Amino acid sequence: MNPTTSTARREDDVPTGKAGATSLPAASPGSGLPMHAFCTELYPLLRSITGQGVRDTLSAIARHIPLTVTEVPSGSPAFDWTVPPEWTVREAWIKDPSGRKVVDIARHNLHLVNYSAPFKGRMPLAELRSRLFSLPDRPDWIPYRTQYFKEDWGFCLSHNQLQSLPDGDYEVCVDTTLAAGSLTFGECVLPGRSTDEVLISAHVCHPSLANDNLSGIAVATFLAKALVDIDRHYTYRFVFAPSTIGVITWLSQRESVTPQIRHGLVISGVGDLGAYNYKRSRRGDADIDRILAYVLKQSGLQHTINPFIPYGYDERQYCSPGFNLPVGCFSRSTYGSYPEYHTSADNLDLVRPEHLEQSLDLLLKSISIVERDRKMLSLNPKCEPQLGRRGLYSLVGGHNEGQKLQLAMLWVLNKADGLNTLLEVAIESGIGFDVIYDAAVALAHTGLLTSEVA
Amino acid sequence: MNPTTSTARREDDVPTGKAGATSLPAASPGSGLPMHAFCTELYPLLRSITGQGVRDTLSAIARHIPLTVTEVPSGSPAFDWTVPPEWTVREAWIKDPSGRKVVDIARHNLHLVNYSAPFKGRMPLAELRSRLFSLPDRPDWIPYRTQYFKEDWGFCLSHNQLQSLPDGDYEVCVDTTLAAGSLTFGECVLPGRSTDEVLISAHVCHPSLANDNLSGIAVATFLAKALVDIDRHYTYRFVFAPSTIGVITWLSQRESVTPQIRHGLVISGVGDLGAYNYKRSRRGDADIDRILAYVLKQSGLQHTINPFIPYGYDERQYCSPGFNLPVGCFSRSTYGSYPEYHTSADNLDLVRPEHLEQSLDLLLKSISIVERDRKMLSLNPKCEPQLGRRGLYSLVGGHNEGQKLQLAMLWVLNKADGLNTLLEVAIESGIGFDVIYDAAVALAHTGLLTSEVA
Amino acid sequence: MNPTTSTARREDDVPTGKAGATSLPAASPGSGLPMHAFCTELYPLLRSITGQGVRDTLSAIARHIPLTVTEVPSGSPAFDWTVPPEWTVREAWIKDPSGRKVVDIARHNLHLVNYSAPFKGRMPLAELRSRLFSLPDRPDWIPYRTQYFKEDWGFCLSHNQLQSLPDGDYEVCVDTTLAAGSLTFGECVLPGRSTDEVLISAHVCHPSLANDNLSGIAVATFLAKALVDIDRHYTYRFVFAPSTIGVITWLSQRESVTPQIRHGLVISGVGDLGAYNYKRSRRGDADIDRILAYVLKQSGLQHTINPFIPYGYDERQYCSPGFNLPVGCFSRSTYGSYPEYHTSADNLDLVRPEHLEQSLDLLLKSISIVERDRKMLSLNPKCEPQLGRRGLYSLVGGHNEGQKLQLAMLWVLNKADGLNTLLEVAIESGIGFDVIYDAAVALAHTGLLTSEVA
Repeated sequence: MNPTTSTARREDDVPTGKAGATSLPAASPGSGLPMHAFCTELYPLLRSITGQGVRDTLSAIARHIPLTVTEVPSGSPAFDWTVPPEWTVREAWIKDPSGRKVVDIARHNLHLVNYSAPFKGRMPLAELRSRLFSLPDRPDWIPYRTQYFKEDWGFCLSHNQLQSLPDGDYEVCVDTTLAAGSLTFGECVLPGRSTDEVLISAHVCHPSLANDNLSGIAVATFLAKALVDIDRHYTYRFVFAPSTIGVITWLSQRESVTPQIRHGLVISGVGDLGAYNYKRSRRGDADIDRILAYVLKQSGLQHTINPFIPYGYDERQYCSPGFNLPVGCFSRSTYGSYPEYHTSADNLDLVRPEHLEQSLDLLLKSISIVERDRKMLSLNPKCEPQLGRRGLYSLVGGHNEGQKLQLAMLWVLNKADGLNTLLEVAIESGIGFDVIYDAAVALAHTGLLTSEVA
Repeated sequence: MNPTTSTARREDDVPTGKAGATSLPAASPGSGLPMHAFCTELYPLLRSITGQGVRDTLSAIARHIPLTVTEVPSGSPAFDWTVPPEWTVREAWIKDPSGRKVVDIARHNLHLVNYSAPFKGRMPLAELRSRLFSLPDRPDWIPYRTQYFKEDWGFCLSHNQLQSLPDGDYEVCVDTTLAAGSLTFGECVLPGRSTDEVLISAHVCHPSLANDNLSGIAVATFLAKALVDIDRHYTYRFVFAPSTIGVITWLSQRESVTPQIRHGLVISGVGDLGAYNYKRSRRGDADIDRILAYVLKQSGLQHTINPFIPYGYDERQYCSPGFNLPVGCFSRSTYGSYPEYHTSADNLDLVRPEHLEQSLDLLLKSISIVERDRKMLSLNPKCEPQLGRRGLYSLVGGHNEGQKLQLAMLWVLNKADGLNTLLEVAIESGIGFDVIYDAAVALAHTGLLTSEVA
Repeated sequence: MNPTTSTARREDDVPTGKAGATSLPAASPGSGLPMHAFCTELYPLLRSITGQGVRDTLSAIARHIPLTVTEVPSGSPAFDWTVPPEWTVREAWIKDPSGRKVVDIARHNLHLVNYSAPFKGRMPLAELRSRLFSLPDRPDWIPYRTQYFKEDWGFCLSHNQLQSLPDGDYEVCVDTTLAAGSLTFGECVLPGRSTDEVLISAHVCHPSLANDNLSGIAVATFLAKALVDIDRHYTYRFVFAPSTIGVITWLSQRESVTPQIRHGLVISGVGDLGAYNYKRSRRGDADIDRILAYVLKQSGLQHTINPFIPYGYDERQYCSPGFNLPVGCFSRSTYGSYPEYHTSADNLDLVRPEHLEQSLDLLLKSISIVERDRKMLSLNPKCEPQLGRRGLYSLVGGHNEGQKLQLAMLWVLNKADGLNTLLEVAIESGIGFDVIYDAAVALAHTGLLTSEVA
């Protein structure tokens, strides 16, 4: 089921600029502030798997990067699924026996169970209680709950507030619509010299939750922004879609694109204080897996490399056995592992500018390797070529053979049998990727090497 | 030389009963007692590689399970070997100078070197001594010796007795026959829905030795008994044959059956106090190897998993390179590793009912996995299927995704590419096999999965 | 690019002599002395990558073993290289302002930068200084420098001497020629029953340096000497060539031979006190890699097994990706790792007879395994054959099954599926190679096994 790997040479891609030309700049110091401001702008929007909140979010993204928005009508098939009716919320509140609005979505988006069906009526607290959700362990926080697949309704509130509700009859208003409409996703496609693609995916369905996943939206947006003006080998495709059904819909609409995806990352939970986590693709040994492990190791930051498991974020879909795409997941704290996860405490204080900036920097470093990593083929495979007469080698022999670039050239030439990537050579040799890449560029310039599509 | 693996679907085998229906019951408490009683019944029989002792043993087994007995005439070829003449013993004794019978097979079967040729005569002790075998380190025990391939004779006795023999002339009577007859083996074949077979093999050639191998005979018999009345996927073939020449003869007579053997175990030495030992098949990574390692690990009992070595029991023959069958060896104390091995001290006290029962229980657990383990193929491999609308998934999202069966379903679906067995999924996921199996059954019922012959 | 492996049976090679007949004798005690004497004889010769010093060295080798000398004319192409002009030195000295010869190649070959172009003239010390090389850290030693690829000249001297030179005008005489001539290499080919080859390579271009690489020349020469009179399975090819350009030239002249090279070793730096180092071939898992690791382990001597890296000695060329030959490198102290390396302190005191002798002994042990290691195929693969009736097995059963040769026979028979080498069986079984080999010989004699070309 894996997309077949094209082995056509990418002749056009023998680096012709100066060595290291396609290396990306690091995240600029202070770039965390506009990302955090962007999270702040997006925080109040009432996102769900469909509806205006998603559209407004995509419009905000489109002010930073070129974005194509696709609307897929309710009822459209998406593999085993069907695009659901679109959800619209006008108002949603509960009035206590005294007529006071004690719970109101106007105060916090999490108060209404996401995708609640319309309801109006009165009922005693005892009856209402089964539709009220709280967190006894975290009595100040409002939980986040969804109810996509059953027409029903409910409210979330803090446990303290729940405890304080007086007995009596409550008036409930859930003025929502579940009706024919569409599911919305956005794509930012940045064409490269190659039609091979790098996929970056962030979900856009969580209302007023900051780390999960405004942080992912912001970092993905600013990553795309950093790639807009550079010379790209790969075509980059940023997907901003609702989780699960949104990504399933995207995959069903873009199935023909998937064989071109060479590397991919789901980005989520990248703004909190937690140590980094990289979850490998289902393949476990994809280039992107090696690259992220390398960048995190080189960073010296605390981190964990985790095997693939079939739950978490949208890598679940990209790595389903029928696609099995080389897509990993890049996070700080992982899905469900921190107390604030899926509660009102996942707010703009949990996400810090410096954490967003560090995450962006690691992704830029990773993309910088993605762009430059490749398999090389020596055009002079029998014996070492004479580096001296090409000006590639110190002309006087002696003790100075330890120089790194010269060693790197020997490594690259010896491994250039079309089987090893430059990053594999870097890891095996212990020489930094940048030096290995510069060596490959220098050798390619003299016609000793050609590169192949990885 | 490995049998080719059929990849035909076993459509008929999508479990149609309730989840876990083919799981076997545990060994019932107290079941060690009838097994020990069976050992006691078999203990006095004078077994050898041919002859009446084997026939009487098979008759006793046939009182518990359906058994087909095959007689292969002396002189029949069996690969590199020839079925030997049949051995019959009428009497065998030594009289001391005073005419007293000091050694007599009527007192202990081990006194006569097994397969001794007939002899009658008188000789001084000095001459007789070269034909008397004892254990100086264990002066009370009688050793067990055989002499299959040379027409000769000898006696075994305790070292204390040997020391006490007075000088003088001794009368020797070995009233045996080595004559045309046959080699006898028994088979209990329990047909399953599939013609693929599970082989269970125990040797039946040791006279008056309890752990090696009345324990194996008893546990194999009671294992067969437990399988008689259940609904079986596999066809089970229990082989009760003399060691080495008996199993070689069986293989030569049943060579056409061997390609159907999917899993197999040699059972021996399963009644003593020792920790468990599982010896892998020559392949080293057969399903049966994974299953036994898993069951022993889950048991929490002390055990060792050993690599294949080309000596030990009849796995030597099943795992010869021309067959290379997926057959391992299940034991407590191993071949030659305990002092009582091949001596009169390997008696009915060394073997305890509770040890037999525990061994049977581990084998039932193993067969229970053999029956249910399989490779699965998702019929909906692109993206996750919608479990909710099939009633397979909690209908309300939120924090309760940790439920085991749901995780198990996600694991099974993600791994259902026809390459992984359910046990491999259990091991990788850390979820118990039973839960993984139940998840697969639930998914198969809804048409999301099909199973293939492993 | 790997040479294809012939799988033709070597019927002619079923050992027909007594077991272990082709095992080589150990290095005879005292054999280090003639090797050290040979180093002493070769030490004064002014070797370089071309010229009379190489020819004189090859003549000296030819007094010990049959040697074919090849001259390749200057200007001949050798893959990416061209055979350089031949270098001839008549005299080379520096006179100080008082007219005294302060530096003179007649005193030490290292004084002249190797391959210096002709020059005559006078210049002040300040100008001369840029052409004078010394080792400030080792003020008594003369460094070794070369300048093959630029027509220039220079001198090497001790730092103490450099410091003591008075100011003033110096007269310089470099009376050399760089002119059409040839590059010279020698080969000792010892034909075996098979045309498959074992390559042993030592470089011959270093002037007055003892460990690097008179030790290699001496040990390779005496190794060849030990093989001259034995019955050989393989054809042995000893190559004595200048490093880099010499071996590249050899490969270009003998490219058609390379597919026959089954095993190979570069020998260098084998006379000093350092612990042994074996550097694996680029393949990493070649038979020769396994053999050297085994011999060093069995020796009990301190040693390190290193992965392949693309710098060091001439394994660089043999293991370039277009050849990728199974050639490792056998050394004591490695390339560049000891202070005396490439200085006048790498002299006849650094190299000791006992170290040379031990190196030769390890190589003889390795070749002894190379000659006997092979993949075996059982001609009786179904069940164990009856060893007893062939006189291969103890005729009385019982406790004596632990005998090593018998176990070795069972291992060899079980593994004789044409996939495993005898050394792999030795390592897996923990039984010594010699016993495993003897078992294989015994089994082959009875027609139970045949051997295949490894």
